[in-house]
Amino acid sequence: MATDDESVLARIMQQVLREAADFSFDLTPPHMGQRIHRIVRRESGHPDPYREQKIRCNRLAAELYPRLKEEVSSADRPMDFALRLAIAGNVIDFGPPGGNPSVSLRHVAEAARRETLAVDDSARFWSAVKTAGRILYLGDNAGEVFFDRLLLEYLPAEKVTFVVRGGPIINDITLNDLDGVGLEKIVTVIDNGSDAPGTVLEDCSPEFRRHFETADLILSKGQGNYETLSGIKDRHIFYLLKAKCPVLARDLGVPEGSMVVRGSGPL
Amino acid sequence: MATDDESVLARIMQQVLREAADFSFDLTPPHMGQRIHRIVRRESGHPDPYREQKIRCNRLAAELYPRLKEEVSSADRPMDFALRLAIAGNVIDFGPPGGNPSVSLRHVAEAARRETLAVDDSARFWSAVKTAGRILYLGDNAGEVFFDRLLLEYLPAEKVTFVVRGGPIINDITLNDLDGVGLEKIVTVIDNGSDAPGTVLEDCSPEFRRHFETADLILSKGQGNYETLSGIKDRHIFYLLKAKCPVLARDLGVPEGSMVVRGSGPL
Repeated sequence: MATDDESVLARIMQQVLREAADFSFDLTPPHMGQRIHRIVRRESGHPDPYREQKIRCNRLAAELYPRLKEEVSSADRPMDFALRLAIAGNVIDFGPPGGNPSVSLRHVAEAARRETLAVDDSARFWSAVKTAGRILYLGDNAGEVFFDRLLLEYLPAEKVTFVVRGGPIINDITLNDLDGVGLEKIVTVIDNGSDAPGTVLEDCSPEFRRHFETADLILSKGQGNYETLSGIKDRHIFYLLKAKCPVLARDLGVPEGSMVVRGSGPL
Repeated sequence: MATDDESVLARIMQQVLREAADFSFDLTPPHMGQRIHRIVRRESGHPDPYREQKIRCNRLAAELYPRLKEEVSSADRPMDFALRLAIAGNVIDFGPPGGNPSVSLRHVAEAARRETLAVDDSARFWSAVKTAGRILYLGDNAGEVFFDRLLLEYLPAEKVTFVVRGGPIINDITLNDLDGVGLEKIVTVIDNGSDAPGTVLEDCSPEFRRHFETADLILSKGQGNYETLSGIKDRHIFYLLKAKCPVLARDLGVPEGSMVVRGSGPL
């Protein structure tokens, strides 16, 4: 997507392999993704290779939105259905191999209707949401953000700060990709100051870190945020994600492809 | 297969990535395979990681052999069926991703019965075999060698020199893996002096190169030999192979998985 120039592709491959050789096994996949995609952007001269894909995903999700909102409000348990939709929407991800958002987008609602949660801390999730003063919602991907918006309708929006990435990285959502999403109308939106496809705290802005340290509750969407935050034990975090790769599924103790709501921290 | 020690695996990965970063795009996959597997053997201390697999493949193929030989001799066109079997046997390969010899071995005969050749220079093949004085047969993998033996029954064995790899490399056949194959009883067998999974001429022994330069006809089995020899235009070579990866299939202009007999050189 960034370039068709074979000599540039060759140079990117060589630099990525060289970086990968020096990659410490202590770091997370988003650390590596950040380095790889910085090389891609620098060598191709393309500042945002996934821009078209993000626009397309947002447009497809925007088209589904009114019908889904209707379906949620008339569901048996609207809040839980909205929660499952937000998690199912996490399938819109160009990171893991084989991701194909345009096909899977149509199946998001179907998955939310059909599948149960392999890890289900949703009762604790709703009770934590109810009592929290300040809620930080860590977003993940373009397109998926519309499913986050559906869930935000059932959260105390005035207490929620929604966080996007600080710069283009894969199909992750940034401030630049929020046109037409209407998120700013219902919640405060900030970026985290980092172009990692996750939340690498030491790479984030002081402003974001202040939010992170002072929030009563952190809602973390997706694999990248889980991979970078799961080691943190002193913050109250709920992870909402689909386990999209075997390593992560094993770490969570669930089958690959499972939908998960897992609470963590001093509860 | 070479080791379970995670620190050794990590070291191998890092060294392989470092080599891969410096890999010239002018070299062939067998050049790279040679370097990768030298690292694996050196760092793991295992001189022949695929040894057990090669023994198993040979044993499975040996069990099929008598029945297949019978089937060939009673076939409509025994020579062409033997040729197709030798090509179908090329599926026994641990090199390309997804290779699973023990499953596919049972399907070799079925493939030879059912499939036609996507590139079919077999008429020229048989006429070249008839007139050639010295024939060099470049073998490929363990297990597969039994299917080569079936074809050798229909070649002028006294004119054939069969070539194996000079040292352990993936599941390629070496002198050490010929126990029970009985090849030496019907043809002359030599090794090429090289541990590349193909025929990298500059890496082969002077003795092999002399054979290569003076043979009237070269029969080349498999992808690795094709990848390393297909640039050579002044020798009379027939390539017998299955196109097991998309790059090779595109190069040959055939669908992936196709069986191919292609003649090349000053005919």
